Amino acid sequence: MTELKTELACVILAAGHGSRMNSSLPKVLHQVGHRPMLHHVMALGQTLGAARQVVVVGAGGEAVAAAAKEFDDNAAIAVQDPPQGTGHAVQMALPALEGFNGTVLILYADTPLMRAETAAALIGTVTEGAALSVLGFETDEPGAYGRLITDEKGDLDRIVEFKDASEDERAVTLCNAGLMAAPATLLREHLPKLSNDNAQGEYYLTDLPAMAKAAGGRCAIVRAGIDETSGVNRRTELAAAEAVFQHRRREEMMDAGVTLIDPSSVWFAHDTQIAQDVVIGPHVVFGPGVTVGEGVRIEAFSHLEGCTVQASASIGPYARLRPGTDVGEGAKIGNFVETKKAVLGPGAKVSHLTYLGDAQIGAEANIGAGTITCNYDGYDKHLTVIGEGAFVGSNSSLVAPVTIGKGAYVGSGSVVTKSVPDDALTVARGRQMTKEDWAKSFRARKEPKE
Amino acid sequence: MTELKTELACVILAAGHGSRMNSSLPKVLHQVGHRPMLHHVMALGQTLGAARQVVVVGAGGEAVAAAAKEFDDNAAIAVQDPPQGTGHAVQMALPALEGFNGTVLILYADTPLMRAETAAALIGTVTEGAALSVLGFETDEPGAYGRLITDEKGDLDRIVEFKDASEDERAVTLCNAGLMAAPATLLREHLPKLSNDNAQGEYYLTDLPAMAKAAGGRCAIVRAGIDETSGVNRRTELAAAEAVFQHRRREEMMDAGVTLIDPSSVWFAHDTQIAQDVVIGPHVVFGPGVTVGEGVRIEAFSHLEGCTVQASASIGPYARLRPGTDVGEGAKIGNFVETKKAVLGPGAKVSHLTYLGDAQIGAEANIGAGTITCNYDGYDKHLTVIGEGAFVGSNSSLVAPVTIGKGAYVGSGSVVTKSVPDDALTVARGRQMTKEDWAKSFRARKEPKE
Amino acid sequence: MTELKTELACVILAAGHGSRMNSSLPKVLHQVGHRPMLHHVMALGQTLGAARQVVVVGAGGEAVAAAAKEFDDNAAIAVQDPPQGTGHAVQMALPALEGFNGTVLILYADTPLMRAETAAALIGTVTEGAALSVLGFETDEPGAYGRLITDEKGDLDRIVEFKDASEDERAVTLCNAGLMAAPATLLREHLPKLSNDNAQGEYYLTDLPAMAKAAGGRCAIVRAGIDETSGVNRRTELAAAEAVFQHRRREEMMDAGVTLIDPSSVWFAHDTQIAQDVVIGPHVVFGPGVTVGEGVRIEAFSHLEGCTVQASASIGPYARLRPGTDVGEGAKIGNFVETKKAVLGPGAKVSHLTYLGDAQIGAEANIGAGTITCNYDGYDKHLTVIGEGAFVGSNSSLVAPVTIGKGAYVGSGSVVTKSVPDDALTVARGRQMTKEDWAKSFRARKEPKE
Repeated sequence: MTELKTELACVILAAGHGSRMNSSLPKVLHQVGHRPMLHHVMALGQTLGAARQVVVVGAGGEAVAAAAKEFDDNAAIAVQDPPQGTGHAVQMALPALEGFNGTVLILYADTPLMRAETAAALIGTVTEGAALSVLGFETDEPGAYGRLITDEKGDLDRIVEFKDASEDERAVTLCNAGLMAAPATLLREHLPKLSNDNAQGEYYLTDLPAMAKAAGGRCAIVRAGIDETSGVNRRTELAAAEAVFQHRRREEMMDAGVTLIDPSSVWFAHDTQIAQDVVIGPHVVFGPGVTVGEGVRIEAFSHLEGCTVQASASIGPYARLRPGTDVGEGAKIGNFVETKKAVLGPGAKVSHLTYLGDAQIGAEANIGAGTITCNYDGYDKHLTVIGEGAFVGSNSSLVAPVTIGKGAYVGSGSVVTKSVPDDALTVARGRQMTKEDWAKSFRARKEPKE
Repeated sequence: MTELKTELACVILAAGHGSRMNSSLPKVLHQVGHRPMLHHVMALGQTLGAARQVVVVGAGGEAVAAAAKEFDDNAAIAVQDPPQGTGHAVQMALPALEGFNGTVLILYADTPLMRAETAAALIGTVTEGAALSVLGFETDEPGAYGRLITDEKGDLDRIVEFKDASEDERAVTLCNAGLMAAPATLLREHLPKLSNDNAQGEYYLTDLPAMAKAAGGRCAIVRAGIDETSGVNRRTELAAAEAVFQHRRREEMMDAGVTLIDPSSVWFAHDTQIAQDVVIGPHVVFGPGVTVGEGVRIEAFSHLEGCTVQASASIGPYARLRPGTDVGEGAKIGNFVETKKAVLGPGAKVSHLTYLGDAQIGAEANIGAGTITCNYDGYDKHLTVIGEGAFVGSNSSLVAPVTIGKGAYVGSGSVVTKSVPDDALTVARGRQMTKEDWAKSFRARKEPKE
Repeated sequence: MTELKTELACVILAAGHGSRMNSSLPKVLHQVGHRPMLHHVMALGQTLGAARQVVVVGAGGEAVAAAAKEFDDNAAIAVQDPPQGTGHAVQMALPALEGFNGTVLILYADTPLMRAETAAALIGTVTEGAALSVLGFETDEPGAYGRLITDEKGDLDRIVEFKDASEDERAVTLCNAGLMAAPATLLREHLPKLSNDNAQGEYYLTDLPAMAKAAGGRCAIVRAGIDETSGVNRRTELAAAEAVFQHRRREEMMDAGVTLIDPSSVWFAHDTQIAQDVVIGPHVVFGPGVTVGEGVRIEAFSHLEGCTVQASASIGPYARLRPGTDVGEGAKIGNFVETKKAVLGPGAKVSHLTYLGDAQIGAEANIGAGTITCNYDGYDKHLTVIGEGAFVGSNSSLVAPVTIGKGAYVGSGSVVTKSVPDDALTVARGRQMTKEDWAKSFRARKEPKE
């Protein structure tokens, strides 16, 4: 990341209703990569080193404001009520920028895929003397987007809304992405002069460049890929944004030395960290908060969230690692196994059909198929401790709180309620009783004609 | 749906062998969206309000005829044996249309993706006076399709088979989709006059327009997208049809307010119903008969079939809901859980590794990990009833028929064979016996050199 | 496959470091379709009937050499150390071809998708008199590939490296794929004359055609699709090769009569064999060594490896079949079931949440939900035998070695440690004890204010 040569503030427009989402959740809180779109945009401001971030919310924007504060307690909230256009929205943010004289970057909370490099370039043109800089994108299907009309030097002359555009202007394929950077002083000077004398009765931010130019300033254009500038207004667009986000993460992962057998079926969260020479099978899903060490193999149909997997461990297929799981080096989590707040030592094996909740498993311990830690009594969660090298026979129930000592054996099918000393054997099951020919009689009763 | 201004009958051609499917199942019974292609086409007739549907089957078409009757007991079956072309096939259907004087729509049972709007438009042109109307589609790669040759008014002049087409005619990109609408009277008049004087010795339906025109009638053309007109002759085309079907359903769902994180990995059935603000993770499969209420979250790797999920419930990951499952409002079905004929009250929780078959679970009951309802004795299925607020400890076996009373507790690892009163505790497990140092001796025996 | 009219030897270049893979595993051992790329290329040589195969490895190429020997114990290994270009690499292989006077095919171990038909065509041109034959591919984006410059007859005049190419030469879209075929005698004559007088100081194989032509020979060109000629240098390219490989296998399967509901989510191994009228749901993964019989249904989320599934069996959803599994005709493996070294007779049913390891299950036996074979004692694996028509109640633990007789019944929740005679019933569980009102008191203690 190029270091910015200006103090930066971000104004994030988040007041839109998002009615085409057909949702009771505000649009900008819908998620991409397990992170609300608003947080993606605030994270961009953070990456750029913004000294202040102002989030502009609309009427009933409490949930959005709370989410903004959750991401950054220092974020300022401005309220735009009623909505009177983008220019008005930015104006509502100005009081929160009192005393700030650096560059202001105007972002949209429903445009979560802007690259930091692009935003930095936008800011850079202002630092280098432009009165204002707008982001554009080229597209073969410009449709109803506003067009960026350039002057003879290739700078921005004006932004023309599609409906106001002439035939010639409509032929322009460079469109307005909406993002803008400008000195705070310019915004303070010109925003109050915007007019709402138009069909919608709104104050348009897109009138700003012409004003800046009329005042003798140069308006720069920075170009971005359409993948960066696409906003989300419908769930199909949300899915499209998710797809772009995932594509980027997959390429990054592969370039860094991770094998994805079927990249398109592996879903990362925004913060997933995977080391070199990890091989990930098809159909694997990462929730937030996962770190995976070198040489780990994650088989198909695994689901990981809030966990750490140490080097050379083996995960899945069908492993579900829930928050608080820490899988030790070379340890193994097999199929139909769920772990939660479970710390496994190096080389521990939990191969099949097991639930480990609130558990500490020693190094090289072997947990048989069908083992269940009974960690909950309806009120509290209790701890199961299994010592190094212990062997828990299949289909055992470990009724927590309980400790299985180091090197101890639990007989298969036991219900263990009392702790077991190191190196001991414990068995807790019923006596086997057999009735000869019972099944024959049973069948005869059930199938009388046989 | 535009209301039709005519009485409608459908003739559905389903006599093709489908040998390129390499299947013992008749082609038109292969499924798209968990529904035989034949049923898709009959459902189209139903949607259009057809007064009669005639399905034309070939030799050995009993399975097809039975499937037609299964969909609509009033459907007429006509047999075409031996096959002598499409014109002959429709002729075989005429006796079943005796006395019917409305419009006849000719459909193909291996073309399952026709939209009702398009079919209605085809019928509409006949209602408005065309002697006959054929469906066409534009394609850049017309290959060996028959071409629709238009007259100066843009109406159909004739259909030319590719092999009979001149260079100029082959340059035409408007192709014959096969579907046709015409008054029953026209079919009765012209079909008997078709000739089989051609290389194949077959009666071609495609000769009909020229005959209608020669008799002074106007032949209309209605255009459809190629996604609607593609027939299925091979399994790769079946997969392509399935993909188009799923794409449509996914777009509909998202437009209606359902979030699909990875649309391409979610597979719907033809009758899946999902309410607003449902979030569906990657890799989820719906069999037939599923209804999901508002605000439900369905996590990755879930599989639902024949079930109802009430609002705000939480499903998966790795939940398998089988027919007869009804998940109450706010209830939770977690990972590696299978339910079948199981009714769960509001707020009930079944979080892990459980099988609930033939079960009624009260509101707010908590079913521990590894619980199994033992519902089958090899002959009959028996019921398990679990009362409101009951707590079933982990790894319990509930041997049905059995009732766990309201608010009752089942100790972990119990095998419950007798019913438990309200508010009682029941425990059914073996006594735990521990042998000190047994494991040490065992290891010494197994690893004598240690 | 056209039979070759020459004796054939293959030289497989496998010395590249593959540093862009960011891997500790040599590049050519990365897998496509569960098979190292090197093995794909050696399998091609085998298919073509190569009499000898020489694998050229670099410094530290022991793992590659071992993998080559693992595939074919008769493969010769040549070492190229230090690397001095492709021409030098082939030269290093010459000693292993002493006495061989047929045609030599030069292959690349990181180009795993070459079709045998294409390679045979390349060899064929040499058999028919060309001095040498090179493989080319057409692409709209030739980028930095070497260009094949043709003479007036359409034969190869010379190969021009991109950096040495003139403007006109760069406009050529026929590129060098690298593969070459030539008589062994030609290689012996010309390779020693290659010069390393170039920027890299390397001996280039691409200089060979010009030398052969100068000596009066004709150099032929054979064209291949870009899907065949793409080499793998990065993990994104590995994923792309995997996608091409899977696409081919899926098409083959569907053409042969297998239904793939969602082809793109089904992952085959190189050796997967599937019979006609098998229906495979979305999200299914095949490891190596799987054979599936006619009419089998494999539901979503299944994972099969090293197993045989007989006709009409039903697998999944969420079935995991591990090596050594043999599922009998019409048998059923249901959800969350894992099998390993398990042989199931015809009609056996294992429907839910079960682990069968080292087990023989008789015909028509029914294994209840949650059954676990306790096959491992920490040192050895033991066998469980279940007789024909036996019924194992749910949540049972079968402690191996143990035999359940034919027609015998195991009571639900039993821990079976002793064998059970034919037709007997065995039950092994604790007595159920119930304490009235205990739960009420428990709750009162836990919720004192209630």
